[in-house]
Amino acid sequence: METATLQEIDTTVKAWLQEARTLVYQCMQNDLTVEQKTGRLDLVTNVDKQVEQLLRGKIKTLMPTAKIIGEENDHGQIKSMVGAVWFIDPIDGTMNFIKQRDDFAIMLALYIDNQPILGWIMDVTKNHIYHGGPQLGVWRDDEKLPVPADITLNDGLIELSASRLVANEMHFEEIAKMSSGVRIIGSAGISFIKVLEGKAVGYASKMKPWDFAAAKVLLETNKILVTTIDGKEIDMLLSSTVLSATASAHMQIVQLQQP
Amino acid sequence: METATLQEIDTTVKAWLQEARTLVYQCMQNDLTVEQKTGRLDLVTNVDKQVEQLLRGKIKTLMPTAKIIGEENDHGQIKSMVGAVWFIDPIDGTMNFIKQRDDFAIMLALYIDNQPILGWIMDVTKNHIYHGGPQLGVWRDDEKLPVPADITLNDGLIELSASRLVANEMHFEEIAKMSSGVRIIGSAGISFIKVLEGKAVGYASKMKPWDFAAAKVLLETNKILVTTIDGKEIDMLLSSTVLSATASAHMQIVQLQQP
Repeated sequence: METATLQEIDTTVKAWLQEARTLVYQCMQNDLTVEQKTGRLDLVTNVDKQVEQLLRGKIKTLMPTAKIIGEENDHGQIKSMVGAVWFIDPIDGTMNFIKQRDDFAIMLALYIDNQPILGWIMDVTKNHIYHGGPQLGVWRDDEKLPVPADITLNDGLIELSASRLVANEMHFEEIAKMSSGVRIIGSAGISFIKVLEGKAVGYASKMKPWDFAAAKVLLETNKILVTTIDGKEIDMLLSSTVLSATASAHMQIVQLQQP
Repeated sequence: METATLQEIDTTVKAWLQEARTLVYQCMQNDLTVEQKTGRLDLVTNVDKQVEQLLRGKIKTLMPTAKIIGEENDHGQIKSMVGAVWFIDPIDGTMNFIKQRDDFAIMLALYIDNQPILGWIMDVTKNHIYHGGPQLGVWRDDEKLPVPADITLNDGLIELSASRLVANEMHFEEIAKMSSGVRIIGSAGISFIKVLEGKAVGYASKMKPWDFAAAKVLLETNKILVTTIDGKEIDMLLSSTVLSATASAHMQIVQLQQP
């Protein structure tokens, strides 16, 4: 796709995100409607649903034939990454949104024929949009972000998901102990932002495609590796334990997974 | 002490904190000097030392006879809480400061005859000061903070220290599993702020007196319980595994510690 076209899409989507943010703040003035999905820790609110509806409508107008994979309407019908595929995470970090009204994100991504094209992560309360892709570079609002330094696990903070750390799956305890410190934020989007900004050396968690699609575009553009935790290519239509990390930290963590 | 006097001290200390914040940002324009204290994860920078020096000087001018317990100059000489005792944590969350330049705090507290009088926690990057005490109430800058709702552990996010969670000491895994989610921030001050604001139901970690002195003043003023994790009164001159939590969550966590 031509760079001018990508820039137009980027500008358009940033305006959608601001509209979505306004909707979130309007909804927060009233009580939230909270429902359980798979259990007491897997929640959805009326805001998740309304934001996804808003963004689906925008995408359908902009690209009527594109496929859309969204957290709150995913029935697994999309079986292939051929053509244009959009990913929507309307509220990433729903528990943070419910309990804190802070540290949650809205994320969008565009892939064409399985190639990462554009990604957007909005830190809603801080009102920053991280956006771009291989052709445009990576930006926080209007400021271009540098490629993070290739720091080792030992010299960096690592973001992990609480559930795998507590269960010590995938050697999460060793990962934590090797690092300079483990941090748990409760939002994939906000965790990925820390890696993008060089504040964390990596982030590992079990995730669904809408949790990592946007970050994969942005991180890979800036030389951060994004694979399964055992170093394999990610299937964009499946859940994975995703590892995003600097080259050095990535190698250390993948090596821990070897039998 | 008269309320007018306390208000004067409060106003004076808020100005010190702004001065300290300016110093921190000046220092951040140059490389930090980082040294190990007890090991590779226990670090001190030139900024920790300079901020403590600044605040010690201010306290000595304001209250020449007061005792001072500060993180970077603590040689354990203070053996009693009789009279006026100040606590200084010049940079709380030093690892966050070094690695992220974010999520760190400056904390001060004043106790008289072991009674909490005034406390201050500055979120340096967000430039908010949480301050007050039993006579003044609890404030974020100029806004009075309400008493947080008495939420149970199951319905709230819990802040924990990574080391005790990974080692599963003090039933930290059970605490995590009972909660709506565990968060690890890496700064006592920023974690305590979440409890003060009702964004987390509690915070538990092994801490030294300067880590918890300010928060104890503010949290107890707003009905959050602050004790050792087995429910005992805290000795202000010793390290403890400190639990701060709503009454309901506090009861649940203390019960887990019983043999």
